Amino acid sequence: MNMSKVKVGVAGLGRIGKVHAEIIFSRLEKAELVAVMDIVGELARTTAEKYKVKAYTDYDAMLKDPEIDAVYVTTPTNLHKEMIIKAAESGKHIFAEKPITVTVSEAVEAVKAAEKAGVKLMVGYMRRFDDAYRTAKKKISEGAIGNPLVFINVARDPGPPPGWAQDPRLSGGIFLDMLSHDFDMARFLVSREVKEVYVRGEAALYEEIKQKGDLDVVTISFEFEGGGYGLIHGSRKSVFGYDLRTEVMGTEGTIYIGSQTDPNLAVGTKQGLTYRGVQWFWSRFYDAYVSEGEAFINSILMDEKPPITGIDGLRAVEIAEACWESLREHKPVTVKRRL
Amino acid sequence: MNMSKVKVGVAGLGRIGKVHAEIIFSRLEKAELVAVMDIVGELARTTAEKYKVKAYTDYDAMLKDPEIDAVYVTTPTNLHKEMIIKAAESGKHIFAEKPITVTVSEAVEAVKAAEKAGVKLMVGYMRRFDDAYRTAKKKISEGAIGNPLVFINVARDPGPPPGWAQDPRLSGGIFLDMLSHDFDMARFLVSREVKEVYVRGEAALYEEIKQKGDLDVVTISFEFEGGGYGLIHGSRKSVFGYDLRTEVMGTEGTIYIGSQTDPNLAVGTKQGLTYRGVQWFWSRFYDAYVSEGEAFINSILMDEKPPITGIDGLRAVEIAEACWESLREHKPVTVKRRL
Amino acid sequence: MNMSKVKVGVAGLGRIGKVHAEIIFSRLEKAELVAVMDIVGELARTTAEKYKVKAYTDYDAMLKDPEIDAVYVTTPTNLHKEMIIKAAESGKHIFAEKPITVTVSEAVEAVKAAEKAGVKLMVGYMRRFDDAYRTAKKKISEGAIGNPLVFINVARDPGPPPGWAQDPRLSGGIFLDMLSHDFDMARFLVSREVKEVYVRGEAALYEEIKQKGDLDVVTISFEFEGGGYGLIHGSRKSVFGYDLRTEVMGTEGTIYIGSQTDPNLAVGTKQGLTYRGVQWFWSRFYDAYVSEGEAFINSILMDEKPPITGIDGLRAVEIAEACWESLREHKPVTVKRRL
Amino acid sequence: MNMSKVKVGVAGLGRIGKVHAEIIFSRLEKAELVAVMDIVGELARTTAEKYKVKAYTDYDAMLKDPEIDAVYVTTPTNLHKEMIIKAAESGKHIFAEKPITVTVSEAVEAVKAAEKAGVKLMVGYMRRFDDAYRTAKKKISEGAIGNPLVFINVARDPGPPPGWAQDPRLSGGIFLDMLSHDFDMARFLVSREVKEVYVRGEAALYEEIKQKGDLDVVTISFEFEGGGYGLIHGSRKSVFGYDLRTEVMGTEGTIYIGSQTDPNLAVGTKQGLTYRGVQWFWSRFYDAYVSEGEAFINSILMDEKPPITGIDGLRAVEIAEACWESLREHKPVTVKRRL
Repeated sequence: MNMSKVKVGVAGLGRIGKVHAEIIFSRLEKAELVAVMDIVGELARTTAEKYKVKAYTDYDAMLKDPEIDAVYVTTPTNLHKEMIIKAAESGKHIFAEKPITVTVSEAVEAVKAAEKAGVKLMVGYMRRFDDAYRTAKKKISEGAIGNPLVFINVARDPGPPPGWAQDPRLSGGIFLDMLSHDFDMARFLVSREVKEVYVRGEAALYEEIKQKGDLDVVTISFEFEGGGYGLIHGSRKSVFGYDLRTEVMGTEGTIYIGSQTDPNLAVGTKQGLTYRGVQWFWSRFYDAYVSEGEAFINSILMDEKPPITGIDGLRAVEIAEACWESLREHKPVTVKRRL
Repeated sequence: MNMSKVKVGVAGLGRIGKVHAEIIFSRLEKAELVAVMDIVGELARTTAEKYKVKAYTDYDAMLKDPEIDAVYVTTPTNLHKEMIIKAAESGKHIFAEKPITVTVSEAVEAVKAAEKAGVKLMVGYMRRFDDAYRTAKKKISEGAIGNPLVFINVARDPGPPPGWAQDPRLSGGIFLDMLSHDFDMARFLVSREVKEVYVRGEAALYEEIKQKGDLDVVTISFEFEGGGYGLIHGSRKSVFGYDLRTEVMGTEGTIYIGSQTDPNLAVGTKQGLTYRGVQWFWSRFYDAYVSEGEAFINSILMDEKPPITGIDGLRAVEIAEACWESLREHKPVTVKRRL
Repeated sequence: MNMSKVKVGVAGLGRIGKVHAEIIFSRLEKAELVAVMDIVGELARTTAEKYKVKAYTDYDAMLKDPEIDAVYVTTPTNLHKEMIIKAAESGKHIFAEKPITVTVSEAVEAVKAAEKAGVKLMVGYMRRFDDAYRTAKKKISEGAIGNPLVFINVARDPGPPPGWAQDPRLSGGIFLDMLSHDFDMARFLVSREVKEVYVRGEAALYEEIKQKGDLDVVTISFEFEGGGYGLIHGSRKSVFGYDLRTEVMGTEGTIYIGSQTDPNLAVGTKQGLTYRGVQWFWSRFYDAYVSEGEAFINSILMDEKPPITGIDGLRAVEIAEACWESLREHKPVTVKRRL
Repeated sequence: MNMSKVKVGVAGLGRIGKVHAEIIFSRLEKAELVAVMDIVGELARTTAEKYKVKAYTDYDAMLKDPEIDAVYVTTPTNLHKEMIIKAAESGKHIFAEKPITVTVSEAVEAVKAAEKAGVKLMVGYMRRFDDAYRTAKKKISEGAIGNPLVFINVARDPGPPPGWAQDPRLSGGIFLDMLSHDFDMARFLVSREVKEVYVRGEAALYEEIKQKGDLDVVTISFEFEGGGYGLIHGSRKSVFGYDLRTEVMGTEGTIYIGSQTDPNLAVGTKQGLTYRGVQWFWSRFYDAYVSEGEAFINSILMDEKPPITGIDGLRAVEIAEACWESLREHKPVTVKRRL
């Protein structure tokens, strides 16, 4: 692409949108933050002032800005489909926060729109850029553990999701909003598709989650296409901190990713040796967000396929829908692939 | 019971039988090893000489020995049923190595025989006496983690079982021979019965295991009666050592048991910091075997119910049978309870 | 102080100066980066462009800028004394990177100049703001380990210092450039002064360090005033990563800070379970640099004593000089306090 | 030597003597326990009954027993010298618990007596047989960490020594009774002699230790002959369990031995993740005691030099005496070698 720097606008200035704006401004050498947008005018204005860029409160208006090459869609998930399609139709490259959309049919529409417009569409499963996960992937590809046979993932958030993400109609619920990260890691690390899922779970921890129709404790057994098995457990509570651990066992070894404790401080008293938990994903994955941004910008500049495509985003939604069906039907459900 | 020391005979002098004999002789204050039995005469004789006790090659003959109060049944699993019943009929208390029998119907017979004869019958799920598991149980009972919601267990043996245990007709296969320990821990730690299991697995590691009709890599999703979920993964291979880890998440905390590494040695070179795996269960659980023996002897002397009953043994076999059925039928299967 | 935001100029744009500039710009809410200075014009210009601030190549010129409230002195150590004195005489508050100066007499001059001018002078021992060290300090203050008796510190850098810091005449050598952090932690955590040091060491690893008259492997035994002992080991080599660990044993417990491994990835093969080392101090202490900056800005706005004073900076230089003397004299040496 | 099994008598049935008797009886294939001796008749009799061996209350009488090939001297240290000399004069091989004697001159006498009599004399620094230390030694010998430069050892016992060992006149005090293990490891792992020591320490924890003239918290800086440095810290208190850690840094890597926590159980609550400490040396080093016994027996059967000689025992006492002198004189002290 014939440009020295990709000019970027960020649409949606909630916590994740703000992080992306900061990273684009201060860490991405080949990107330039040129605009920010939020329907809350005050938020758009103060953020724009900080970075001395343009402020929009209207998404359509921002899309008409000819200076902008690419947009970050960092709004609630239920708004993604329309925003992706509009951006595609405006010829802007698109970085969509995960998950790509709430439903499979929306995802199909979004992916097709980007394809038709010939713009890049990348979905923000940033763990792929975390140094530990990335190195694990490399080791597995190099054969360090032989043929991968079992993927196990424990994901416990310190608390329930804030704000709109508590509503499964807006967020897709626990299988999409939270655990689609873990399914993305299963696909990424093992390099096979998820074939069939079997789910058990309930809302056992928080009354508000129960009332909104979402779950907060789940277990998933699944099978990969072409061989291999997976177990995923997700919980919306972990009292001492973020507890995210993944392991992949192969015929010749096992790789372990993640830790439930911060090894940097231990207090030894008569009670024993007490470690602290790890901080939530912001600090754990900050560097991954930076690398993810670099990869998106590079895919535009080099005119290459983004490392996490719209299809990757779609797969996550397909799996989440199969999980909901397995829960309802109380039986193993085959994941249907739409594209 | 009116005796100062319980006089014990050990029947079956394979590796586990020898360990029990050594423990009874040198560690159990209230027990006295008086006889050992094996159909291999040489084995019986050399062991008997070491401890200066009687040697038998015929089980029936040993059971007629009036000096013997209790027998350890430490032969291949397929022999247990008959040996337990005979011991019961001879009025001897019985310690049966796990699993109690190969099939549910055999277990029912064995349990009934012991009940009818009024003798103690204890089954050797020694992890219940391991200090880590025992303390975990205590902490959970005291409410340290609130209401238990999720049980997760990873069990990877360093290699396939030796000798007769490779034949699932003699051993019950992976769900009974190996993973009944893990189901016993699920029942022990959570204090609820296993209600329904869903299994995936295959023989992916060893040709000889495949040919004998057993599995070497499995994943199990299950549900507890009264609430809560479980995930178990078992593998007959772990290239760097024994990898046994259990965790129980509750509403107020999580308990972690086991470790895949020995923290006592780390070698730091340019490749990183390399730890060794842990040794197999002999050294990990030696002290548990001692405590288990003490508990059995105490239950006789105090005339109390043994801490792991025949019913506990039966439960493990019921679950294993349900696992095989789930695998065959490719669907969740309810565990049927027979007693 | 009657200002909404402290306006800051950064003098010296080597790697640490650039990090401070970035932090002031993007992370310090109450500070505003208004100027950067480096004698390398290109460096000053490109950095100034990035943040849209003024560029200086002449330190005296920057000090005349009336907009500037405070300067960061982030040049090689041998330049600190003069720059601190000039800044003080210009009425600017001063943040000096550690160590404050190369020699004790320089430090005394610098401290006196700041006192005379009535400006804040803070020295950048950022570990005081690291969450692990800070929490350890808090726990010790609260009595979690009783009365502190022994301080142990192992500090192994992944490699020799880059550039000018290899010359002990410019940097003060290993006791000042590197280990003054560790002595600062001893004083910080135990809340007592260092009374007497005994040193052994040599240049055993790098020929270039030997030729410049510095050391690369040292061990220090010391005693606190008012009771308690310390052991410090420093090395300029650690082949698998940064190895920084501190422990404080008290009458009622022990606190451990730091870890030699990153727990987030382990690769288990036949060789064992291999962890990676931790990254060097940039990523380990990035958040500490941010908090340190906040503390400096707050001390100006609230007109309070900075949390790390010029006297703290002086103490480190006094100890380093005593270390060199102990090495030369091959005996324990009392640390002389000058202010 | 023309014998199938070495016939052993154990003299001194305190806790360590009992452990040796148990190991000789049940674990050493090539040894036969034939007698036990203690001046407390009841102790001698009950132990002898357990193993069906001879009981002695008089050491001289036991030495006259022609059936006995070798004696274990497991009495308080102050009795060792005379017992070793008598055993040597009776032509018995000798295993002496560490330390060999209380003073250097006693050690010289004991070593000379064994030499003159041509009997084996081995001293029980069992850590040399611990799998972690032994493997570390092997790795270092193979060059895994290059040239060893720094030895660091932290040794914290859970509590003060019991019984007679509290009296430094009987035990040699902290430098001999406790830390001679650590100096032995320094010599063993680095394969160099200790040249000079510098000590700081006091009795800060226990009034009874102070009154008896011993220390409970010490730090030692030392230098190896031929290059390399050492730091040792010892404490008679560690509130959450035995804390023994050793590390050796070389030009190409670092080896870490020991751990302050048992990784097998962690309880995660709002307070964090709490591990338990490790059990005291009995369980940590039980297998090492077994291997040590095997090595002693083998050295007799193969007529080879024992792996830990009387000279090794003497070195430990020489170092301990230099430590006491350094403490008194408050200066570095050269270790004088007597044989």
